[in-house]
Amino acid sequence: MTSPESEQKKSFPTTVIALAILLVVALLTCVPYLVSIALAQGPTAANALPIFGVTIPVNYKQWELIAPAEEAAPVDELRAVVGNQAASEAYQDGKLPFPDGTILVKRAWKRTQSPDFASATVPGAATTIQVMVKDSRKYAATGGWGFGRFMDGKPVDEAQHRTCFACHEARARSHDYVFTRLAP
Amino acid sequence: MTSPESEQKKSFPTTVIALAILLVVALLTCVPYLVSIALAQGPTAANALPIFGVTIPVNYKQWELIAPAEEAAPVDELRAVVGNQAASEAYQDGKLPFPDGTILVKRAWKRTQSPDFASATVPGAATTIQVMVKDSRKYAATGGWGFGRFMDGKPVDEAQHRTCFACHEARARSHDYVFTRLAP
Repeated sequence: MTSPESEQKKSFPTTVIALAILLVVALLTCVPYLVSIALAQGPTAANALPIFGVTIPVNYKQWELIAPAEEAAPVDELRAVVGNQAASEAYQDGKLPFPDGTILVKRAWKRTQSPDFASATVPGAATTIQVMVKDSRKYAATGGWGFGRFMDGKPVDEAQHRTCFACHEARARSHDYVFTRLAP
Repeated sequence: MTSPESEQKKSFPTTVIALAILLVVALLTCVPYLVSIALAQGPTAANALPIFGVTIPVNYKQWELIAPAEEAAPVDELRAVVGNQAASEAYQDGKLPFPDGTILVKRAWKRTQSPDFASATVPGAATTIQVMVKDSRKYAATGGWGFGRFMDGKPVDEAQHRTCFACHEARARSHDYVFTRLAP
């Protein structure tokens, strides 16, 4: 006897197989796209920072200069803040708060006497890289900013990262917690 | 009587007209491109510099950072050299001499105490903009470089421009007359 129920049981595996094949094809189609996203975001999870999960943007050396700066001894550094497209547009338009997607990177080097000019100081060895990423939902507890601090390409420890926001909050609240102003 | 020669004469204007139309279409097609080139090169002849005819590149604030620097008192400035695509590629590849088309711009600001941090010095008012343009034929007499120095967007006088190359030649000959090294 063939009841409708047993027919359903027979046809069930065929449908499942068809759906599974469709799913596999769809997933395989996505692979190149997913790989490109992974490569574009670049840094591996191993280099992601404690607390905020912030990483060093792959192409930050090509970003626009926001402003150079200098840090006195004992830190004794030359610095330069660069920003991604969202950052530089917000700076140019004087737009506050910075929009989600803004990324700022502070590069830093030991101050070194120029070999060519007695009056000139130039970058020596690179020291730290500091990153601020704006995501008002993800980082709601820290003014919308995720913070990352790296030495030799490796994130510093969690304790150091817990100090970032308190200082930015105390001193730069009126400028969306960002110290750096656009160099004229 | 219709000789092959007279037929050729008759058909000649038609060919010319067709070619002329083609030429006009081709030229019109190029207009947006030519306009964009003109706008990209930007500066008017009125702002061109004495001797070298160098101008301030329109989009230099979007160029890649080569290195920041600091100039001691009495000049007392923070500085940053940025470069166009040709410049940054040459720096990244460590290629010397720099290729024709290289443009370097040195931005400069008065050193100013940060209002937020006692240890930090930040850019104050912008002072000079200094430009180096590589064209090994046009500037053959000065190491292949044209020099431009601007204050408040206006070129300084000819006498000042006559001093540029002598100093670059005396101190930076081994680096294609360029002082600035790529910040690591």
